[in-house]
Amino acid sequence: MNERNLGPSRRSEVEPFIAMEVLAEAAKLEAEGRKIIHMEVGQPAAPAPQTALDAARKALVSGRLGYTEAKGILPLRRRLRTHYRDTYGVDVTEERFVVTTGSSAGFNLAFLAAFDPGDRVALTAPGYPAYRNILRALGLVPVEIEVGPETRWCLTPDHIARAQNDGPIKGVLVASPANPTGTMMSPAALEALVQYCDDEKIWFISDEIYHGLVYQGQQACALSTSENAIIINSFSKYFCMTGWRIGWMVLPEKLLRPVERIAQSLYISAPELSQIAAMGALDATAELETVRAGYARNRELLLEGLPRVGFSELLPVDGAFYVYAKTSGFSDNSYNFAKAMLHETGIAATPGIDFDPVHGHDYLRLSFAGGHEDMKAAMQALQNWMA
Amino acid sequence: MNERNLGPSRRSEVEPFIAMEVLAEAAKLEAEGRKIIHMEVGQPAAPAPQTALDAARKALVSGRLGYTEAKGILPLRRRLRTHYRDTYGVDVTEERFVVTTGSSAGFNLAFLAAFDPGDRVALTAPGYPAYRNILRALGLVPVEIEVGPETRWCLTPDHIARAQNDGPIKGVLVASPANPTGTMMSPAALEALVQYCDDEKIWFISDEIYHGLVYQGQQACALSTSENAIIINSFSKYFCMTGWRIGWMVLPEKLLRPVERIAQSLYISAPELSQIAAMGALDATAELETVRAGYARNRELLLEGLPRVGFSELLPVDGAFYVYAKTSGFSDNSYNFAKAMLHETGIAATPGIDFDPVHGHDYLRLSFAGGHEDMKAAMQALQNWMA
Repeated sequence: MNERNLGPSRRSEVEPFIAMEVLAEAAKLEAEGRKIIHMEVGQPAAPAPQTALDAARKALVSGRLGYTEAKGILPLRRRLRTHYRDTYGVDVTEERFVVTTGSSAGFNLAFLAAFDPGDRVALTAPGYPAYRNILRALGLVPVEIEVGPETRWCLTPDHIARAQNDGPIKGVLVASPANPTGTMMSPAALEALVQYCDDEKIWFISDEIYHGLVYQGQQACALSTSENAIIINSFSKYFCMTGWRIGWMVLPEKLLRPVERIAQSLYISAPELSQIAAMGALDATAELETVRAGYARNRELLLEGLPRVGFSELLPVDGAFYVYAKTSGFSDNSYNFAKAMLHETGIAATPGIDFDPVHGHDYLRLSFAGGHEDMKAAMQALQNWMA
Repeated sequence: MNERNLGPSRRSEVEPFIAMEVLAEAAKLEAEGRKIIHMEVGQPAAPAPQTALDAARKALVSGRLGYTEAKGILPLRRRLRTHYRDTYGVDVTEERFVVTTGSSAGFNLAFLAAFDPGDRVALTAPGYPAYRNILRALGLVPVEIEVGPETRWCLTPDHIARAQNDGPIKGVLVASPANPTGTMMSPAALEALVQYCDDEKIWFISDEIYHGLVYQGQQACALSTSENAIIINSFSKYFCMTGWRIGWMVLPEKLLRPVERIAQSLYISAPELSQIAAMGALDATAELETVRAGYARNRELLLEGLPRVGFSELLPVDGAFYVYAKTSGFSDNSYNFAKAMLHETGIAATPGIDFDPVHGHDYLRLSFAGGHEDMKAAMQALQNWMA
């Protein structure tokens, strides 16, 4: 046996998440006293809403926080049921909700419960890199489908049909509004894709984490089309609770017990304090709508200002809080461009290679989830630097 | 494609975690107004220490909690370095610490970073069921090795050598003190096993979650023998922070980047508030030693009382907070026995089948992490019921 080597697994060779590396580099500069404007991570500048903080503070008084049911505390699952009635007009029993440790856990659980090693899962490129990385780590095959302006950067039944020519597609994963593009599918486009997957017996996974953050067009929930859709969502974005690591899934009946069993072993339960705070967040509509209005102002500022300083091609920003901007006019490598920009202007942004291994070197993702003054300062600094 | 079915994956057919099912059943009885004594889950009755709660309260004032570095906040990793110097006299740089979302995330990350599908990993039976379930969900092969009194319920190099006859063993996972047995390896026995794995180029994963909870014998850290050991630990047990979902790993250099990359995509980061609270917990020695002294009193009570009421065979309780008791004298199925006990006495305990698919029906695990009055009441109720 001595010829063997102690080394990492082959499947651990997933790509690093460049946004997190930029975050680390930016933090280093900040530690050296530099003022950094953070446009690299999809993270609201606002804290969790007051109602969430109050609920957490109250729970800390007793101090006893323990494991909960693997699916999450019943009052939160009941409250989510009401949320779905109010927001989408769909009625789903609380049994079909599973509270997760962020949407990260939601993806991992959905992939484990629905797919076996070797299964092919279709995604958009550009798209959120963790999808691809989690799929690979679990022995699954991400099938990245290039999307562009001809479909408004969205997947269509045609895309999937063509991908099936190379072998069966077992799942389709879509985010709408999307990261990094900010584009959103129309309710009709979403319905057509969900219906196609249903007919073809393909699991449809709907990442709805940017729901609530919509500036033009109409958001739709995949549940309105099919009970088989796997919904993944989180309190990180609209609800401003990134660091709390709390999210949820809505599952088809068939996957309920499989997900519960896997969650019992893989997570035990989501953090109890975050579950309690999340209940509070669901009652904070007024406060959260004010935050959203701030993003809308930031969006206007960037959509007006970025073209003026030289970013002449921007994708349509329907929702989320990202501008995906073409950099090929002035740089052939957005990674080097982002590095220079960080060091010379103090603005951190994420190069596109995180999201699109093929064309990403021509794009930069700028998050406008920060404060309005920061956005103004960023535009000023960019104007001087790019000139 | 229409002949296909939408169904769960094969790998999602992991076993349910019976302890969690008992917890759910007990919660149902409680909701109906029954008084339940919880001896089914490995969960301290004490809340997180005051220093942890204070740190959390302070962090809630600003309210801004965000993603952290995937490896965890630097001050916590530095504080853990000091903890290792003080506790074990080993010096490990802070770079080798990774803060995780409970030990659950630690296992998942270690398995993904060290093993590829099909790899065989040796475990004890009886043992913690999540090991086996996570391994299976990831396409790995748990090799369960029956242990008994002849090795004091511990794995030895001989066990591993024999298991290698059926194919190479790529990893050995050991908990000491162990769950559910409460038995602990002597420093010499641990050293021999770690050294054997090192010589054979087998990854050694040391679950040290019950360190600090030792009543007889001497605990040892696998790092004292080898820099290649993968250490997994948590703030859930000694530090009384189950519901906070916070733990840590100490990794060999070679696995650092692989684990960091996987963690970026699979977890993003551990909950920030829990990381801050954990810093506080590491300064709470006096309070936590009082809690430990309470377990020691509970342990005395059970070791004296259980044989009197009929549990004549108990495993040696070196550490942790479990008594693993033989039930075959009065029941041929500890699952039915546990169910009857729960409904007729209000005492929740976990049947052994969770921990040992072969002999588990002859055992019951009783956790003594509860309050002393509860333990006294449990002994009284058992005496009446068993008589």
